[in-house]
Amino acid sequence: MNKTVIEVRYQETDQMGIVYHANYLVWFEIGRSKFVEDLGLQYAALEKDNVLSPVVDIHIHYQKPAKYGEKVFVYTWLSKYNGVRITYQYKITNEQDELLVTGDSEHVLVDASTFRPLRLNKVNQTWHEAYQKALKEDS
Amino acid sequence: MNKTVIEVRYQETDQMGIVYHANYLVWFEIGRSKFVEDLGLQYAALEKDNVLSPVVDIHIHYQKPAKYGEKVFVYTWLSKYNGVRITYQYKITNEQDELLVTGDSEHVLVDASTFRPLRLNKVNQTWHEAYQKALKEDS
Amino acid sequence: MNKTVIEVRYQETDQMGIVYHANYLVWFEIGRSKFVEDLGLQYAALEKDNVLSPVVDIHIHYQKPAKYGEKVFVYTWLSKYNGVRITYQYKITNEQDELLVTGDSEHVLVDASTFRPLRLNKVNQTWHEAYQKALKEDS
Amino acid sequence: MNKTVIEVRYQETDQMGIVYHANYLVWFEIGRSKFVEDLGLQYAALEKDNVLSPVVDIHIHYQKPAKYGEKVFVYTWLSKYNGVRITYQYKITNEQDELLVTGDSEHVLVDASTFRPLRLNKVNQTWHEAYQKALKEDS
Repeated sequence: MNKTVIEVRYQETDQMGIVYHANYLVWFEIGRSKFVEDLGLQYAALEKDNVLSPVVDIHIHYQKPAKYGEKVFVYTWLSKYNGVRITYQYKITNEQDELLVTGDSEHVLVDASTFRPLRLNKVNQTWHEAYQKALKEDS
Repeated sequence: MNKTVIEVRYQETDQMGIVYHANYLVWFEIGRSKFVEDLGLQYAALEKDNVLSPVVDIHIHYQKPAKYGEKVFVYTWLSKYNGVRITYQYKITNEQDELLVTGDSEHVLVDASTFRPLRLNKVNQTWHEAYQKALKEDS
Repeated sequence: MNKTVIEVRYQETDQMGIVYHANYLVWFEIGRSKFVEDLGLQYAALEKDNVLSPVVDIHIHYQKPAKYGEKVFVYTWLSKYNGVRITYQYKITNEQDELLVTGDSEHVLVDASTFRPLRLNKVNQTWHEAYQKALKEDS
Repeated sequence: MNKTVIEVRYQETDQMGIVYHANYLVWFEIGRSKFVEDLGLQYAALEKDNVLSPVVDIHIHYQKPAKYGEKVFVYTWLSKYNGVRITYQYKITNEQDELLVTGDSEHVLVDASTFRPLRLNKVNQTWHEAYQKALKEDS
């Protein structure tokens, strides 16, 4: 599990005076890329190998809004991985450890030019093994 | 059901060369506000009465990416309404009528100052009746 | 000169209750791409030829804020063009014809792979001539 | 002068494969709020006193694009202050200390309800003195 701290940006607020709801997906992505870095991997490197990992499904549940001037904590972990599809789970809390948002996102791997699906173990064995290991540890 | 056309903005793309996944939530919101306008209502007016309608739950399924230079169509309709919670459904297609994204969002009504939940029929009877009518038509 | 109407998006507001200041640059870009379309050209087509047109300089002056629920009008015209650098000017007004924002942006043309500068008349003669003609008309 | 590190977000890229040009304004704002914090002040606190500090003028010069996977450094300092208008200057560099972007922004202080201009020394003497001191140190 990765824990990443994010300082709410003024730009992320809307006229309700709270963080605009789509921005939590951006924070999920930051958590995801930090999670990947923790495994010793880099998403930017995967892209250089012509592999993309687009999202296919997201669910997000909003409990309490984040506000400007606050720090939030994004917890990210792997909940499913089968070599083809990757599911991450997320929990976002504030400094008082109150739960703000939970969610999950499912991703596939595709060829950057054709958007055809790829199997991660054929694309990058190091990634594949790191994910198998992470799945065991997180579940 | 409302059908709204959106021209993809350059700013909405990311380095995958496709629309960044969080932006579909922005398009859902545009569809939602057009749906509301179709009922003869205005979200901006509701806010002036100190009522907000934050989202509590979103699910989004990504089928095919939208790209810069395309027009997309956002279809929005009411799928559930019980006076307290409102659920909208969305379908986004491209000009070839290919399905890009589907999703739904659940909303509550709250007092803008306290974020305490409100019943729509107590806040605004006109909205309440328009939603009851729309629910019948859309289902 | 192109005149494009934009409906303010909820997502574009911030907690000041007005449009977040960086979003006017997005509106400038929409005006710019509509201006280009008016000339019978398409920016997406230019990119397919491996040509990008990044911005090198922007100046923006904020006079009055745009708000959610409003329509704004983006006026875009060509103020300078010498085959290498392109300068657009912008004026944004509201429905009461009040001036909200003015600005200008300077662009170059570069090779998409190397980011090396290109001369527009060598890249695309049609564009070059259309720009020369537009410059005469707008000034 | 404040120096703030920012990790480029995937969401901040566009289909040119570089950071979308409007996002540098967001980074300027982050630098600005860190600069203010360095003075022992908090922008969020100012807003609670019903004071906003909208931008009236921005100039930005783009030299070299930032990319995903990079860290950038935002340098912010006060270049002008006369009790009514505040001008910040910015310089953004990458990890190789290459200059990416320079710019400046001019701000006023206004009443949050009426948007009428305010003099900072009448609104908040602590801010006023901190700015006078910072101006001497930065110039």
